[in-house]
Amino acid sequence: MGILSGLSSPADLRRLDVAQLEALADEIRQLLVEKVSATGGHLGPNLGVVELTIALHRIFESPEDPIIFDTSHQSYVHKILTGRADAFDTLRQRGGISGYTARNESEHDWTESSHASAALSYADGMAKAFQLTGRSERKVVAVVGDGALTGGMCWEALNNIASGHDRNVVIVVNDNGRSYSPTIGGFADNLARLRMERSYDEFMEHGKKTLKSMGWVGERTFEALSAVKEGVKSHIIPTEMFPELDMKYVGPVKGHDLKSLLHALTYARNYDGPIIVHAVTEKGHGYAPAVNDIADQMHATGVIDPLTGVALSQSKPDWTSVFTDAVLDAAERRDDIVAITAAMAGPTGLAPFSEKFPDRFFDVGIAEQHAVTSAAGLALAGMHPVVAIYSTFLNRAFDQMLMDVGLLGLPVTFVLDRSGVTGPDGASHNGVWDMALSSIVPGIRIAAPRDGAQLKELFDAALDITDGPTVVRYPKGALPTEVPALMQLEDGVDMLHYSDATEDGLDVLLVAVGSFAGVALEVAASLEALGVNVTVVDPRWIVPVPASLVGLADDHDLVVVIEDGIVRGGVGSLLSEVLSAAEVDTPLRRLGFPSLFPMHSSRSELLAEVGLDHDGILASISGWLEGLVED
Amino acid sequence: MGILSGLSSPADLRRLDVAQLEALADEIRQLLVEKVSATGGHLGPNLGVVELTIALHRIFESPEDPIIFDTSHQSYVHKILTGRADAFDTLRQRGGISGYTARNESEHDWTESSHASAALSYADGMAKAFQLTGRSERKVVAVVGDGALTGGMCWEALNNIASGHDRNVVIVVNDNGRSYSPTIGGFADNLARLRMERSYDEFMEHGKKTLKSMGWVGERTFEALSAVKEGVKSHIIPTEMFPELDMKYVGPVKGHDLKSLLHALTYARNYDGPIIVHAVTEKGHGYAPAVNDIADQMHATGVIDPLTGVALSQSKPDWTSVFTDAVLDAAERRDDIVAITAAMAGPTGLAPFSEKFPDRFFDVGIAEQHAVTSAAGLALAGMHPVVAIYSTFLNRAFDQMLMDVGLLGLPVTFVLDRSGVTGPDGASHNGVWDMALSSIVPGIRIAAPRDGAQLKELFDAALDITDGPTVVRYPKGALPTEVPALMQLEDGVDMLHYSDATEDGLDVLLVAVGSFAGVALEVAASLEALGVNVTVVDPRWIVPVPASLVGLADDHDLVVVIEDGIVRGGVGSLLSEVLSAAEVDTPLRRLGFPSLFPMHSSRSELLAEVGLDHDGILASISGWLEGLVED
Repeated sequence: MGILSGLSSPADLRRLDVAQLEALADEIRQLLVEKVSATGGHLGPNLGVVELTIALHRIFESPEDPIIFDTSHQSYVHKILTGRADAFDTLRQRGGISGYTARNESEHDWTESSHASAALSYADGMAKAFQLTGRSERKVVAVVGDGALTGGMCWEALNNIASGHDRNVVIVVNDNGRSYSPTIGGFADNLARLRMERSYDEFMEHGKKTLKSMGWVGERTFEALSAVKEGVKSHIIPTEMFPELDMKYVGPVKGHDLKSLLHALTYARNYDGPIIVHAVTEKGHGYAPAVNDIADQMHATGVIDPLTGVALSQSKPDWTSVFTDAVLDAAERRDDIVAITAAMAGPTGLAPFSEKFPDRFFDVGIAEQHAVTSAAGLALAGMHPVVAIYSTFLNRAFDQMLMDVGLLGLPVTFVLDRSGVTGPDGASHNGVWDMALSSIVPGIRIAAPRDGAQLKELFDAALDITDGPTVVRYPKGALPTEVPALMQLEDGVDMLHYSDATEDGLDVLLVAVGSFAGVALEVAASLEALGVNVTVVDPRWIVPVPASLVGLADDHDLVVVIEDGIVRGGVGSLLSEVLSAAEVDTPLRRLGFPSLFPMHSSRSELLAEVGLDHDGILASISGWLEGLVED
Repeated sequence: MGILSGLSSPADLRRLDVAQLEALADEIRQLLVEKVSATGGHLGPNLGVVELTIALHRIFESPEDPIIFDTSHQSYVHKILTGRADAFDTLRQRGGISGYTARNESEHDWTESSHASAALSYADGMAKAFQLTGRSERKVVAVVGDGALTGGMCWEALNNIASGHDRNVVIVVNDNGRSYSPTIGGFADNLARLRMERSYDEFMEHGKKTLKSMGWVGERTFEALSAVKEGVKSHIIPTEMFPELDMKYVGPVKGHDLKSLLHALTYARNYDGPIIVHAVTEKGHGYAPAVNDIADQMHATGVIDPLTGVALSQSKPDWTSVFTDAVLDAAERRDDIVAITAAMAGPTGLAPFSEKFPDRFFDVGIAEQHAVTSAAGLALAGMHPVVAIYSTFLNRAFDQMLMDVGLLGLPVTFVLDRSGVTGPDGASHNGVWDMALSSIVPGIRIAAPRDGAQLKELFDAALDITDGPTVVRYPKGALPTEVPALMQLEDGVDMLHYSDATEDGLDVLLVAVGSFAGVALEVAASLEALGVNVTVVDPRWIVPVPASLVGLADDHDLVVVIEDGIVRGGVGSLLSEVLSAAEVDTPLRRLGFPSLFPMHSSRSELLAEVGLDHDGILASISGWLEGLVED
């Protein structure tokens, strides 16, 4: 790689001319296709920002001028330009580089969370701090997608940024017309119109020629004029992005034309005050398999053939597809079933629903708060909404779940995909919080199916509940082998295993939440080999706590709850609350996710790391049993 | 009350002419001043919407056309017009009417939560349901303040409403230039400009005359024309509220002129598709003491003299004022202290800070998400932000606290006022969730001061923590008597009481969280009279759990945690998690707020109702001790 290998820092970009930058873009694009096809990752979004990222690092002086990437799944090019090109073989792997910005990788990375729409708020705060500490010459750049702008956080931030007339925030809108799905809403329509306008650069050229013919000279003069004179500005920029905020706007800029980008970003860098640069890009640009992928321009891929873009790993039947079938089936039977997604029809399994029942399908954009409260409105008027969302993104709508759905006791069913440890996407994509959070809502019912058959059954049961919200949560990935129940107790608890009692052995009750049923049974076998009597139950409904668990706990010497979620306020603690209220004081232990933000790695690596695999669970329980014997 | 007493339902309004409606407005205004001055309540906001609410009920057919009041603190006039005028003596009191809309009071009330910015999302959902079920002739009206429009939820909803071209959502913006504080941000500047435009009605009059002179006849014709012809529209409406959403806009409308309001709302009712009606109102209108209250136009008052508006109850030293002094003191000492409020500088005690350190004070609008993530940005650039917020509103920013502050380990101090049971404002204003929620954040430290002296000390200590977020939480209202510690343990736990051991008595450890120290000591005295040995400790820092509590728990026969927050995932469960991990199996019991949404009543009534007063606590512990003796 000729040019790239000669770069030691982004500052080196300033030595290159436009032709060299264009060649560099080609190199980076090749590198992305080669590396990401081998590891999997966010290929499409990064192919779309190659030129934009080069231009940003050429014009702004990172890290003095912080560049904040919203969500930061599109920060690969930034990583390549800031010394991490060689690390892309390890992308998203344990010990390798993260798929998002990460502060321990580079001083050029300022943030880490991969939840959308937060970058503008960070930028507002940083610009305020720079102003207060006499560093207001520093520019804070926030790169945000048009999809993320449908999120309410962006509006809150824009409203504040717009009023900071003397603070230097540069908002670069990476407008590819997509979030994951095509961007939706009235705002998206407006962007589509803006995109069709004569580009900023063409206007500038036209303006310069006109002024020259009128005797004016030089680009600076023209830019200075256009910056201050409303009349000229309104001709240069026929429509604005957020006119009611009265913020300086430059665009549309051709997002794969380096000259145009450099031009517009130079203007933005020299402008005093907040400014929006509207770059029109193409997701997957320059890589035909991505551009031609009508679903999502290869937003996130697994391992693929770099030439054809065809997936190399066979996809196995997964949890999501069971949900797809279940919700289609329910909608066939019942007219009141509607489905809601926050810009993720594909990954949540709702795409077939959207095709079959377009009138009853609502993609609200990257707007989890609205997803939940508009579901409340649908329920108030007689529908039974199904809100399908990644577990981790439910965090954005906790208040709405509690106040707008829970308080009114409305029948909204939350379907939480990617619950529990997910792994390669890093700390902020793990779905370990949903049980602690949603169990706070008075009157809610929460189901954790252990396999595909249970998912179908529990989802259907949730739809039959009319007096309050329900949650069905399941992990990412392939379905486990079905785990049959020995028997079902009256309150719906499944007895999965029961030891033939060893007279002098201790009796352990294993409460296995959801997909942990399989490992619980393996651990039970290992414990029995040590002379311990083990009962394994799957509560199926974890909230409210089934009454039979109280009696079962009372009949055992130790209760162990194994859950794919945080210990803090999790199912173990909920059971402990119920047992304590019933004055059942059998020792109880919790096996769940500890209070830390994990590094990215595979799900199985991460589970082993925190002691949630067979060996870890066995070791923990063996230790506890020893402690009980000693007492 | 002549006209009001003759109304049996809102439909009766349609018999009245404009003069009668104006007389009715006078009656209602008198009633509001008389009643709310006696009970306390949201006087200013309701005085501002008298004419608007009359006009809404005259034009729309509630409850067939649902009228959703955002936040719903401004729904008193709606309550008066829907049969509840006689109930205003009981406003916000136990068994009386709620200060917000409440579904158990009237079929005209559709929602209940008092968290701002949610109404448009409800309306979007309801309109979708009406469309799906063949009832699309029904109009869904959402009444929202200009302040609430600074909240991101509104943007998410507007974006969706705008794209529903064939759904009938009428958004009535009640623009009084205020949220609690003056509305902030670029959007507020735009509203201020809009307000100065020639009013909608004046344009309509002008237009009609012009058309008449051109041979056109009749109001309908003109309206029909203006609705369809962009050229005419753009003359009638010189600027729009959200032009990038391309939604029909009517305004500005004089919000205290019934004729104008009826005119504009008639237009909105007859319009097909989503429409914004911009009504300019005055908070406190018609009541001089409110209009002249420069702080907040009597947003929410206690008991006042109805003639002068002067408060009749003496205000006692309260928690908030201790925080005010502490944050001012800290800011004097340290340049890096900045303070952030979400539109509540007054109630959170930051108003003096905003006057003394205007550059270091940021009111972000009703935008808790941005409050938290912009704080993260400030911290990233070296400041130590103090985010002062009501406990209940932290729910809106849980994801930001976890992902944008916690994940980066940033030194942001959250000061949570109105924590715990608050009472009269009903279910959604109780601050019972913050400990369960914020303790989820890895690395966070949470302090619950028991009195004013502790608040000052713990707040200062929080500001000295540089490697992660901190929380200081305290309740609403007057300060309790200071509770001295017998001694402080090495890890900062305060020993408040220790029994001289009764040989045959059981040993109880009372862990009193925050302001429950006082009642815990009273209960300890009562238990000792029954021969029980009681140790009372105040952990002060509840997260992380102080190590000494583990040893103390091991030395007692029963551990009881008393906390002003939910049992579900609360401090009791957190301690239980720590004890269980340490294999300390002393029976533990939790006394906290149960999993339910309470009705409004006083704090003391509500605490007694859920067993958190002296008698309730004593009865619970006595019962548990009996159980332990029996075992």
